[in-house]
Amino acid sequence: MHNLIKDLLFKKLNNPILKELSDSAFINYRERLAFTTDSFVVNPLFFSGGDIGKLAVCGTVNDLVMQAAVPEFLSLALIVEEGLDYKILEKIVDSISIAARKTGVYFVTGDIKVVEQAAADKIFINTSGIGRIIKDKRLSIKNICLGDKIIITGRIAQHGLAVLAKRKELDLGFNIKSDCAALNDLLIPILKKTDAIKFMRDPTRGGVATTLNEIVESFKAFGIIIEEKNMPISLKVRAASELLGIDPLYIANEGCAILVVKNSGTKKVLDLLRKHPLGHNAQIIGTVAKEPKGKVISNTVLGTQRIVDMLTSEPLPRIC
Amino acid sequence: MHNLIKDLLFKKLNNPILKELSDSAFINYRERLAFTTDSFVVNPLFFSGGDIGKLAVCGTVNDLVMQAAVPEFLSLALIVEEGLDYKILEKIVDSISIAARKTGVYFVTGDIKVVEQAAADKIFINTSGIGRIIKDKRLSIKNICLGDKIIITGRIAQHGLAVLAKRKELDLGFNIKSDCAALNDLLIPILKKTDAIKFMRDPTRGGVATTLNEIVESFKAFGIIIEEKNMPISLKVRAASELLGIDPLYIANEGCAILVVKNSGTKKVLDLLRKHPLGHNAQIIGTVAKEPKGKVISNTVLGTQRIVDMLTSEPLPRIC
Repeated sequence: MHNLIKDLLFKKLNNPILKELSDSAFINYRERLAFTTDSFVVNPLFFSGGDIGKLAVCGTVNDLVMQAAVPEFLSLALIVEEGLDYKILEKIVDSISIAARKTGVYFVTGDIKVVEQAAADKIFINTSGIGRIIKDKRLSIKNICLGDKIIITGRIAQHGLAVLAKRKELDLGFNIKSDCAALNDLLIPILKKTDAIKFMRDPTRGGVATTLNEIVESFKAFGIIIEEKNMPISLKVRAASELLGIDPLYIANEGCAILVVKNSGTKKVLDLLRKHPLGHNAQIIGTVAKEPKGKVISNTVLGTQRIVDMLTSEPLPRIC
Repeated sequence: MHNLIKDLLFKKLNNPILKELSDSAFINYRERLAFTTDSFVVNPLFFSGGDIGKLAVCGTVNDLVMQAAVPEFLSLALIVEEGLDYKILEKIVDSISIAARKTGVYFVTGDIKVVEQAAADKIFINTSGIGRIIKDKRLSIKNICLGDKIIITGRIAQHGLAVLAKRKELDLGFNIKSDCAALNDLLIPILKKTDAIKFMRDPTRGGVATTLNEIVESFKAFGIIIEEKNMPISLKVRAASELLGIDPLYIANEGCAILVVKNSGTKKVLDLLRKHPLGHNAQIIGTVAKEPKGKVISNTVLGTQRIVDMLTSEPLPRIC
């Protein structure tokens, strides 16, 4: 199996650096870098709109993009349960290969460990990534100030519900597709065109609510007020959330980002986002406000206000 | 558990870059880089001379060093089985922290996934690493030529046998300690002092025999002849190997390296190695020879010759 995997990986992910077959990849660089790592343990491995392989590329690419870095080099480390069907493995590596090509990143180093049956659940994937930060760009949570606008680049809760539906074999009567996508093609050109974007984060585990809370918690001088009516949610996600009694604000996303944008640049950023298929549903969802400090408040469609808390326990483990 | 782990990691591995808490680390760089990744699934987690944490630092550091790169930044990704004793986790993170400090590397980005019981075996660790390649240094298997000497920097088979002894609870009547160690302190200064070293690789999985076979396989114009009598092996390892019927040439090492050195520079390299505690037992073990092409031959102590084959099946899974 081990050799089969190696052959498979080299065939599908081939590039000159990987071909060197060294213990580590040799990269020529003269820039500021971003460096990130993520393990993927999603269950099930395949779901509507994606699979663990696509996720492992997009997730790490997006973490780099959030730092205003052009993703370039990725590592791939597989932990495989002995006896995993070779066809499943091939399908996953195909998916990794396609996502990498589409995204313009190169896998330059890798590792495979095979563990005995029941020592792991089918396959776990770690991808680490290096990206070149756009010249003179330095996004930081510290740049955020009063009056900044919060933009979300796409419809929320698609990924988490797609995984949940597949895992529980829910018959919702309709299909919810994960938003799993690499955001470099959407966001890097916009970052180059404008300095209005101050901070970005992709609301993965814990969803939009958790990401917004992380932002207000780290600079307790301000709060965030969001407008429920502006939150982009598909009818299917709204229906499924109601059926399942889940708040979509807490559901993981894998193909959208939260941007904190200088008020005066909001329109330009929104226009640029909406021109791209991945940003078509972008919306201004909130404002950085003086009060309540360190909290996220939602103005509901009913005209009331509610506190959007940090998630204390994870409702959906192994979502990514 | 999740929060506990996060607190634990931040406390033990703290540094200014990690503190930024971004999706990916921001690194200022103006150099040629090496980039590597490795997952660690060793069973048992603790063994004589080391543990999975120390291994996860040393293994990735050594992969960078093998590229003549000064290891600088590491990522840490943990996959933790739900219910793992917190004290075990703390002990592992302590070990990671101590190894990182000792080695002079910084963990700048990380990830934690918790999976349900029986979906993973206690804990798996992935470390990826970035190193700055020594100026004008470019080690490559392509540099190797006829007459080059093969040096090993330390005694062989210590790691694999230490793990095996602990896993099987063997009562050997004596203790074999893993050689698990970071090799940057030994090798980086020597690489800076001499250009005689053409290629390096650490003989981990599959041991010395596998590494030597990988070398001859990739440049089939030459073979390698090793001298069994020069192979540095402790009496304990020799005794244990005989008892267990295992060939120490195939046993994993985690704290020694194989160097291919220009004949004229061999004495200097050997002298430099032996001045360092980790290189004290360094030996010239072989020569790059015209025949047999693409093969590794051992001149045994009995005066005979034997072919040292590539390992076809792994005798000791989950050794690292």
